[in-house]
Amino acid sequence: MGIEEKIGQLQAHQKKLRAYKHAMNLLNYDGSTLMPSGGADYLSDTLETLSGEEYCLRTAPEVRELLLKLTEVSEKLDLQTRREAEELLREQNRLLRVPKEEVMALESAASRATACWQEARKNSDFAAFAPHLEKLIEIKKRYAGYIAPEKPVYDVLMDDYERGMNQKDMDAFFGELKSALTPLIGQVKEAGQPDTPFMEGPFDTARQKALSGMLMDIMGLDRTRCVLGESAHPFTTEFSRFDVRITTRYTEDDLTGNLYSVIHEGGHAMYELSIGDALSYSVLGEGASTAIHESQSRLWENYIGRSREFCHLLLPKLKELFPAQFSGVTAEELYRAVNLARPSLIRTEADELTYPMHILIRYELEKAVFGGDLKAADLPGEWNRSYREYLGVDVPDDARGILQDIHWAGGDFGYFPSYALGTAYAAQIFDALKQDVGVARCCETGDFAPVRQWLTEKIYQYGMIYTPAQLIERTCGKAFDPGFYILYLREKFGRLYGAGL
Amino acid sequence: MGIEEKIGQLQAHQKKLRAYKHAMNLLNYDGSTLMPSGGADYLSDTLETLSGEEYCLRTAPEVRELLLKLTEVSEKLDLQTRREAEELLREQNRLLRVPKEEVMALESAASRATACWQEARKNSDFAAFAPHLEKLIEIKKRYAGYIAPEKPVYDVLMDDYERGMNQKDMDAFFGELKSALTPLIGQVKEAGQPDTPFMEGPFDTARQKALSGMLMDIMGLDRTRCVLGESAHPFTTEFSRFDVRITTRYTEDDLTGNLYSVIHEGGHAMYELSIGDALSYSVLGEGASTAIHESQSRLWENYIGRSREFCHLLLPKLKELFPAQFSGVTAEELYRAVNLARPSLIRTEADELTYPMHILIRYELEKAVFGGDLKAADLPGEWNRSYREYLGVDVPDDARGILQDIHWAGGDFGYFPSYALGTAYAAQIFDALKQDVGVARCCETGDFAPVRQWLTEKIYQYGMIYTPAQLIERTCGKAFDPGFYILYLREKFGRLYGAGL
Repeated sequence: MGIEEKIGQLQAHQKKLRAYKHAMNLLNYDGSTLMPSGGADYLSDTLETLSGEEYCLRTAPEVRELLLKLTEVSEKLDLQTRREAEELLREQNRLLRVPKEEVMALESAASRATACWQEARKNSDFAAFAPHLEKLIEIKKRYAGYIAPEKPVYDVLMDDYERGMNQKDMDAFFGELKSALTPLIGQVKEAGQPDTPFMEGPFDTARQKALSGMLMDIMGLDRTRCVLGESAHPFTTEFSRFDVRITTRYTEDDLTGNLYSVIHEGGHAMYELSIGDALSYSVLGEGASTAIHESQSRLWENYIGRSREFCHLLLPKLKELFPAQFSGVTAEELYRAVNLARPSLIRTEADELTYPMHILIRYELEKAVFGGDLKAADLPGEWNRSYREYLGVDVPDDARGILQDIHWAGGDFGYFPSYALGTAYAAQIFDALKQDVGVARCCETGDFAPVRQWLTEKIYQYGMIYTPAQLIERTCGKAFDPGFYILYLREKFGRLYGAGL
Repeated sequence: MGIEEKIGQLQAHQKKLRAYKHAMNLLNYDGSTLMPSGGADYLSDTLETLSGEEYCLRTAPEVRELLLKLTEVSEKLDLQTRREAEELLREQNRLLRVPKEEVMALESAASRATACWQEARKNSDFAAFAPHLEKLIEIKKRYAGYIAPEKPVYDVLMDDYERGMNQKDMDAFFGELKSALTPLIGQVKEAGQPDTPFMEGPFDTARQKALSGMLMDIMGLDRTRCVLGESAHPFTTEFSRFDVRITTRYTEDDLTGNLYSVIHEGGHAMYELSIGDALSYSVLGEGASTAIHESQSRLWENYIGRSREFCHLLLPKLKELFPAQFSGVTAEELYRAVNLARPSLIRTEADELTYPMHILIRYELEKAVFGGDLKAADLPGEWNRSYREYLGVDVPDDARGILQDIHWAGGDFGYFPSYALGTAYAAQIFDALKQDVGVARCCETGDFAPVRQWLTEKIYQYGMIYTPAQLIERTCGKAFDPGFYILYLREKFGRLYGAGL
């Protein structure tokens, strides 16, 4: 069998995997949007079964043989094929260490925990959720033991989201962030806040929906391949680069929640929609890592969407949709309003300055759960203590505390650190972007094609062909440096809250 | 290996099949509701791949061995297990006659044709759809040749929807209908029509949505397991008996479209939601056949929903939601308005009397395509000629003619006759129901629990355990007899349009 034929087999195998991904992502998407509550258990069973089928497909002896043969001749392969074989073999090696039953058990437990979490959060009932959380922690500990018994559990878990991410590096990263931001946050708390009565609403939901559409068009999201839905927690899921779903949520008394959710999820969607043609059916046809993905959502949401220039673009549209609220408001007032920095309870609604502290708290809690002896039952207490210590806020209930995010219910431990890392990536990428592209000019004209083209050329098109480190190096001309992030925050919030900062 | 162990394997196999069904039904549902247009090709690829995976699963040598061994000891099996093995073996025998590539090609062609049909119908552009239709007809002809080369193609196709349905029986059935209804329809056309200005609207969409919810509650549909969505063509799809989706469509100038779509699809949903516990993960856990399924949607829609008694229940709700339109309207006037009999263009909006003629036309066209030499390209002309001959109406464009229904785009040839058959089943089942249950009393109280209980006891709970013929015999105490249907139509429309009929 010649190389060409082997490559054909590799492509056929990937096409199958993509079909399972499409189906399972849709099942999960439907579960979070339309599914009636009674369907939750059956959905868990379906996901469990399909994850077992996918496991068999990925670990089949003939696939192993194919991948090993391709690896032998890797120097004869084009870059894409070589990377495909490499990634598939890496994933196969990972899966072969874990019994199929454990993979299925995780899928099922995560789906059931997610259904429970939705109710538990609504009722602020941590006790109902605790057994699920405990079970997931146990499964994940066993999982890490299968994968790399010689490594710290938490390092193994983080590596699944951002390859190579480990406690040593993240301790340094968060240490730097913490020492830079803690005094800044303290000073902001003492500084006065601007008065922003126009943000109090009410903001009619139908008009907010019109705003969502405008935002998608401003960003240049292809509406024939991307649709916006509603869910309790905004999220993005991709079935292919031809079909990406984003969600938001509407509340009459809050405009910024929807506004920045659409831009944030739109940034994730833009990445997936702009992956190169050749990767349509490839396992490499998705974002390079969770942190790189988050860098793209944050870049659009914060570095562009919360800029002074973007507020100039946005204001006339807000005046048109909500004349009662925004008549007489200046772009500078809007800019200050969407950049209010103040310690708060909810991560997804946090301002840019205090956001990393929310992630730091989760990082420390996850470390304590997987590396120390913190039990699931003790998490709410520890959570509340941390919020008091780091942000100076009192958590009134678990719904606004430990139960606020969906990730742990999905078994995603070690995911949160990638949020802070991605936001820091974004600062460095944005710095490089501004050297080549007139972002301020894009805000003036409302045409972001130059931004999209630059990001496509540097990052989007490659999917997983390059590693996060390679992408940063190629895009920015140097290795990742959190200094860009710290400098950005210091300058932005220094100007907003006085030169003293 | 003992029988118990084999039964366990049979159950595990069915659970896998149900997971594929869940995923593929959801993919199709999403394709008809939320999917952006750009996702259509990728969806076709995913469905093609998964249908191939399902083919492999159903025809695996170890499954064949299991089914044959269970068949050998069938007298030792309980009824459900025996029937499961029987149905799985029957389907396996069917699939083993057809190459896997043909099964996948059909799935892919149907998905692509459905996407094309949506646009073609919008633009009344038969020419765009014709190549897809031709391709599907060719695939289906080849398919029938694989399955039973000795049988007429159309008999093979009809048998897939209603086991044993064939042209000989259906010729007799439609012949009887045609000779009874043609003079009736002629007389109705000559009789005067009641004046029903209150049906002209406008009917606010938000209020129509409220009506949909009321109707679901009146029927007693479990809202934790059944949700209503929107689509161009109303339909029902079930992922499991814990999760059934129905759709409707809203237009401001038409109330009855939504009203009877919800009741019709609600009838389908009720059936699926009421299948017995033991069949949750069984291949028998769905309706007995398409005609039996249709009997249940039609029973709720027409025999209950279009009855005089139901109009009494409905009217106060309509007056509440649409006071401008319905103030001063009597229940008798509403009853006449929802039972206007007049030849029309659109099958799904046809009255009970002319409905069977729509099906007859399709039956004759399908017969001519698969048994004669009618070509896809000649279908619109033949369609229009038939509508003139049988219903006396001129078809103004293909959107309201040959392109109106989705079925052929999905490769569903031989499906339509089951609609007429199901409606005739419903007449006979309703006759039996009325002997045991005070349906008029249910309309008075608004509590249809007795109807649901009777239908569950007689039909719903059994899923596919009994054949359609067995179900009719058990429920009605005699074999299927289309006389009930003809008598019902003659009496109802005789009274509505004068004793002369």
